[in-house]
Amino acid sequence: MALFSKIIPEILPQTDNWKGTEKFLRSVVDILIKYIREENVHESKVIDFHHPAEMFKLIDLKIPDKPQNLQTILKACEETLRYGVRTGHPRFFNQISCGLDLVSLAGEWLTATVNTNMFTYEISPVFILMENAVMRRMWETIGWDPNTSDGVFAPGGAISNLYAFILARHNLFPNGKQEGLKELPKLCAFTSEDSHYSIKRASAICGIGTNYCYPIRTDSAGKMIPEELEKKIMEAKKEGMPVTWNPHKLMGALLQCSACLVRKDGLLMQCNKMTADYLFMQDKFYDVTYDTGDKVIQCGRHNDVFKLWLMWKSKGMEGYRDQVNYLMDLAAYFTKRIKETEGYELVLDSPEFLNICFWYVPKKLRKLSPEERKEKLGKVAPAIKGKMMERGSTMVAYQPRHGTPNFFRLIISNQAIKREDLDFLIKEIVDIGESL
Amino acid sequence: MALFSKIIPEILPQTDNWKGTEKFLRSVVDILIKYIREENVHESKVIDFHHPAEMFKLIDLKIPDKPQNLQTILKACEETLRYGVRTGHPRFFNQISCGLDLVSLAGEWLTATVNTNMFTYEISPVFILMENAVMRRMWETIGWDPNTSDGVFAPGGAISNLYAFILARHNLFPNGKQEGLKELPKLCAFTSEDSHYSIKRASAICGIGTNYCYPIRTDSAGKMIPEELEKKIMEAKKEGMPVTWNPHKLMGALLQCSACLVRKDGLLMQCNKMTADYLFMQDKFYDVTYDTGDKVIQCGRHNDVFKLWLMWKSKGMEGYRDQVNYLMDLAAYFTKRIKETEGYELVLDSPEFLNICFWYVPKKLRKLSPEERKEKLGKVAPAIKGKMMERGSTMVAYQPRHGTPNFFRLIISNQAIKREDLDFLIKEIVDIGESL
Repeated sequence: MALFSKIIPEILPQTDNWKGTEKFLRSVVDILIKYIREENVHESKVIDFHHPAEMFKLIDLKIPDKPQNLQTILKACEETLRYGVRTGHPRFFNQISCGLDLVSLAGEWLTATVNTNMFTYEISPVFILMENAVMRRMWETIGWDPNTSDGVFAPGGAISNLYAFILARHNLFPNGKQEGLKELPKLCAFTSEDSHYSIKRASAICGIGTNYCYPIRTDSAGKMIPEELEKKIMEAKKEGMPVTWNPHKLMGALLQCSACLVRKDGLLMQCNKMTADYLFMQDKFYDVTYDTGDKVIQCGRHNDVFKLWLMWKSKGMEGYRDQVNYLMDLAAYFTKRIKETEGYELVLDSPEFLNICFWYVPKKLRKLSPEERKEKLGKVAPAIKGKMMERGSTMVAYQPRHGTPNFFRLIISNQAIKREDLDFLIKEIVDIGESL
Repeated sequence: MALFSKIIPEILPQTDNWKGTEKFLRSVVDILIKYIREENVHESKVIDFHHPAEMFKLIDLKIPDKPQNLQTILKACEETLRYGVRTGHPRFFNQISCGLDLVSLAGEWLTATVNTNMFTYEISPVFILMENAVMRRMWETIGWDPNTSDGVFAPGGAISNLYAFILARHNLFPNGKQEGLKELPKLCAFTSEDSHYSIKRASAICGIGTNYCYPIRTDSAGKMIPEELEKKIMEAKKEGMPVTWNPHKLMGALLQCSACLVRKDGLLMQCNKMTADYLFMQDKFYDVTYDTGDKVIQCGRHNDVFKLWLMWKSKGMEGYRDQVNYLMDLAAYFTKRIKETEGYELVLDSPEFLNICFWYVPKKLRKLSPEERKEKLGKVAPAIKGKMMERGSTMVAYQPRHGTPNFFRLIISNQAIKREDLDFLIKEIVDIGESL
């Protein structure tokens, strides 16, 4: 039988036609570099928005029967970029907009190229040790003893929270792993009423039930009120619940990656080990304590560490410190500016980190009675947001909280942001808000 | 305060020094393209193996205090590649070695560059629709009705299996989500004794307990024996278990990605919805039925679809068919060759897919009594594998099963493999095996 690449000559890898292969890859990179350059033009559009029905017409998304040539593939890449959201744009202020760090990007390109899996030292010798080195720096930073700490990189914070749940459960009731929850006392969890929804979801997944994931009241700054936690624990004890439970104790989230750090070495392995002897053989010729596969709830696991390691290496601890200081400075600047600008109101008078929550109250709402104002104000942020996206000029998230009307939630986390971008946002919101 | 990139001039993005930025990215690509070219030289090494203690000396893994310049970063990339495993090499036959498809690679480079998140149409309009289009093709392929089917991309098959567990549980006992397992009848699961260990792990995570994940006996070909399943179900019913449970029913895994396909539209949403109104607002200006965030157990979710979509588009249905046929042809070739070669024994006489399990019995073991032979044979595969890795010439996995001695498990899934690579493997195993 002929070599596969001869049957469909356009399909790669074409080791017999290395020039064609290299040309294709370099063409892709040209497209990507052009995209990055355009994304960093502050005045350019953040999004070219289209509703789903139009989008289906603009891009041919169907999987075809026949193979397509590489020109079609390059065109598909360009179209995909054209209609996507430019999340690294310095005027994209929506959730999870930490900007596009190019060293981290280089790390991710390399990660994709080596295309390996994190389960054993055998197939990932460098990256397994790298995870170890990065977690060591994290433990040190939060003041844990590296000799008795453990941890794992998970695909996102929600899965890290799920880890925290099953580890806490296993720590208290190790026999639950074999026997299931039916044999255990009734379990419950306590969490801030403002905590991430993945906490509640984790309690559903692991069989506790969302009704037994008790929300604890918070103060106006969103901090859990300790007395309320104590009260709830007493109530639960009266109802026969034995456990205190606090996933936050086990959690650690550092900048731009998700690592679940565990203070008690060995717990991860005890909790998740299933002894798959066809994958994690103990009779290997190297030290198998570096194999992480039996610690995690995934099997194949994406290499999430390299991009972080490379970026952190490039910045060092000092570079990160300066970066956070720069962002804190921008946040202070923005807060000062909206305090000075008519129509803006802060949700919290002194925001404490890089989240700034605020309303814009259009002129015609300012003279209304409190009830009328509240009702109309709730519709302002969604309307401004929709208009922003149609213009494509900028993006910022909004949300309600405990019955307050929708407010904007600005997150300043992109190091490419300049003060002028914040000035632009303030002006744009006024401009759209007054035109409604 | 000065612009961040001026404080630490080497830190990117340097929009004020675009030339430097572009030069850095192109240097990274030069390194990656060189790597891909070398990886595809059939005679080159698969791995340059070092034990952990040596590896710590070869690469400086520590996170530094001071920022590092870009030359250091490029050097770190080169070192990482030098000491890693070349999983795309045509002589890497270990687990999960599907080779490096360069269209898929281009897709992953683009994915990294746009750096977006899959939770809403708002921030991922193109990719959300793309997931839809790809799943549509999957449903059609397995004969499901696209109008009543659903699904989600998960970070790997193990998490897909966890989805299957919680969906099956929710389908039977929707109140478990709120009430927890304590209020439900005792649950159990049935799975093949040879099934992936993530099934057992999923039963631990979701609170059923591994003791109630009953293994069903398989025949010599590794297929579940239906009568054994029936027997176990009857036994469980006698013990008061109400449920049949079959995660496989809900599961679908297509080539080179992990998608959990669900036949019952709406179930994913009902099961996992937590109504995080600060993320998944219903008062948006576009059709929010495309927002997937509340269906999944992650919050931030990596875009896994683009690399698959681009590759599938490039190959079409026909290209994939030809690719699988080519690999099946290679598997038949390998099976024929080891049947002809002295010392080789197949675990199954007629392998049915792309997994081929076999022993190599060195000359000096061939005349031993069955007991002696069995005992010594178990040590042969690990010894050969260790030597292979030290030589760096090739890699293939080994494992035991139901008390048989360790055997090699070859997986033919890399389209870059040629017949000569299989000939090489056969010769290398004999060569090392006889030198032990």
